Amino acid sequence: VACGIKKSGNKDVALIVADRAATAAALFTTNRVKAAPVLLGMQRLGRRGKLQAVVVNSGNANACTGAAGLRAAEAMCDEASDCLGIDARLVLPSSTGVIGVPLPVEKLRAGIRRAAAALSEDSFQHAAQAIITTDRFIKTASANCIVAGKRVRIAGMAKGAGMIAPRMATMLAYVFTDAAVEVGCLRAILSAAADQTFNSVTVDGDMSTNDTVVLMANGAAGNAPVRRGSRGAAALSRAIYGVMKQLALKLVEDGEGATKLVEIRVEGARSTEAARQAAYAIARSQLVKTAFFGQDPNFGRIMAAIGNAGIPVVADRIDVLFDRVAVVKKGVGNPAAEQGAARVLRRRSFRVRVRLGQGTKNATVWTSDLSHEYVRINSAYRT
Amino acid sequence: VACGIKKSGNKDVALIVADRAATAAALFTTNRVKAAPVLLGMQRLGRRGKLQAVVVNSGNANACTGAAGLRAAEAMCDEASDCLGIDARLVLPSSTGVIGVPLPVEKLRAGIRRAAAALSEDSFQHAAQAIITTDRFIKTASANCIVAGKRVRIAGMAKGAGMIAPRMATMLAYVFTDAAVEVGCLRAILSAAADQTFNSVTVDGDMSTNDTVVLMANGAAGNAPVRRGSRGAAALSRAIYGVMKQLALKLVEDGEGATKLVEIRVEGARSTEAARQAAYAIARSQLVKTAFFGQDPNFGRIMAAIGNAGIPVVADRIDVLFDRVAVVKKGVGNPAAEQGAARVLRRRSFRVRVRLGQGTKNATVWTSDLSHEYVRINSAYRT
Repeated sequence: VACGIKKSGNKDVALIVADRAATAAALFTTNRVKAAPVLLGMQRLGRRGKLQAVVVNSGNANACTGAAGLRAAEAMCDEASDCLGIDARLVLPSSTGVIGVPLPVEKLRAGIRRAAAALSEDSFQHAAQAIITTDRFIKTASANCIVAGKRVRIAGMAKGAGMIAPRMATMLAYVFTDAAVEVGCLRAILSAAADQTFNSVTVDGDMSTNDTVVLMANGAAGNAPVRRGSRGAAALSRAIYGVMKQLALKLVEDGEGATKLVEIRVEGARSTEAARQAAYAIARSQLVKTAFFGQDPNFGRIMAAIGNAGIPVVADRIDVLFDRVAVVKKGVGNPAAEQGAARVLRRRSFRVRVRLGQGTKNATVWTSDLSHEYVRINSAYRT
Repeated sequence: VACGIKKSGNKDVALIVADRAATAAALFTTNRVKAAPVLLGMQRLGRRGKLQAVVVNSGNANACTGAAGLRAAEAMCDEASDCLGIDARLVLPSSTGVIGVPLPVEKLRAGIRRAAAALSEDSFQHAAQAIITTDRFIKTASANCIVAGKRVRIAGMAKGAGMIAPRMATMLAYVFTDAAVEVGCLRAILSAAADQTFNSVTVDGDMSTNDTVVLMANGAAGNAPVRRGSRGAAALSRAIYGVMKQLALKLVEDGEGATKLVEIRVEGARSTEAARQAAYAIARSQLVKTAFFGQDPNFGRIMAAIGNAGIPVVADRIDVLFDRVAVVKKGVGNPAAEQGAARVLRRRSFRVRVRLGQGTKNATVWTSDLSHEYVRINSAYRT
């Protein structure tokens, strides 16, 4: 529903409720400046690993708001708990939007009451709409798989466009399954999947104060609870990873002003962490990202970014390819590849592949380009 | 002179010659991918600490050019040494411009011959013109001071606009003094001054393959050689620092597309390194820099950048000021300061001051804003 936090009148309150208390796992921003709902959510979810509802507002981050901000986050949960008749500790709050402005609590309480009255099984898209801010499109994904002979379903929604950084994007994501899953197994599935998805994308390298990813499993499918290391865990893990990867790539595709979705693949590193560092150095470079926007196969900027990654690379072992076109071989630029490379750069989506020639470890991250529109969005409006 | 490397026909060869072999110190890019002239320069300067000439071309970085690139860098020095009748080991080469394109050696040799024929005492500005690429203006600075009763002079030139990063800007800088200085003292003066100047600025966080800072002292002033720890060393150090700071701030002022010069001052950190890290996290943030361009006092982005700096800050101890206007007090945003802060942001130059409230160490860095023009320059042209 819309409660008036957003001046545009767009939806700004989402209430997502399971029909029973669900096993839950969550990841929160590693930013040292954490918004009030993040602080409260971390404390509430704690070790119990149980949630029944998520209440979200967009348009105001409730960050840098001090003690009043914490009381406002509690008030969100209290209102939802009163409306739903459930324990307030089973309600996780999230906020996203502008930082440092007091949350209009009474407006939000009224919104939560209306959202609770309007709850329905077919309003997943409405909720996905209510959590977005500068996003150009809503982001949902779903999958299903067989776990111990039972078909289980997974559905997720996410929001995010700017402040998308490694560990983690400026984003909210909520993923739900009707599988029954033991809490330790659920946590392991979430962190493994997040590592390869939400923690492997960047738009602008800025990390928000509010990032939250929640995974809830309510067991409505009636399967025997999935345990770590079981075949069911492997199947469920793949399906949840698939949903989270779809959501993560949609974040990059919708990166503020983005016109390109680029996969950066670094191979032949001494460690996975080194491969990741090199991939992120390329993915975050403003000069590389403006070259992508200009559709210019400027491999020199990629070489400079690799050399600047803080890992001990050897320049004359490095190969760089745009899709299948080799633009750098053993550290030497190949001007003859210019035309072919330029054709690759004109694609909406392509891959930059870097071979370091030092080992066997690889990493992949996804990034967008840096366009005029990014500057316009982030200079013209307070977000 | 212009030798035709730049398609524009602008000057692209500079030859700077001392009237005698000079004591010399230099700093080179810490990028692991180093251009051929950097590799050759590091090797030539080595421990000897003597130089008599610097030969520079702009328009081609001679980076990612393999063994042929190294031969081209040697050819530059050989040509200069032949023209000047000095040992080739006393010639330091520099190149700046596009990466990965073979250097047109014969054109450059011809250019060096013409530059040698045109050498004169009053063409400092011409040389400063010949080393620039995307720069909007040439960058020179000078000073003088008294060392052991003798007046000595310092003059410097620099180039750089994009790829300006901590440790070091994408830049070339050449600073000359007629003081006599012992080589150890000269090295100490250069690295201390670079730390507070060229290593304390950022435009886009990208570090180049070609960065070079050279300091030459030819002793023509006739003073007794300056030693480390002496009063003369302190005076000379201050004057050289002043010249390098002027040049470094000109790099930021001329940052590609920059409309603002912003000083980021972080106080009250536990260590100087932590203060620097926090200052750079702010100075490099795309969201902070687009807010500067939009003249929006968006302190939330500054708080998010501090929290993301990788140092253990405590959110509710942090104050943020734009010049004298406090926008965050003890971690809480102050919406009442909005108008006053907006006035500060409309200035061409202002200071962001952050008090972490954790210790006594401080750091200052300088940054630019991120504008449409930055994106245009870096997407529309191959640089």
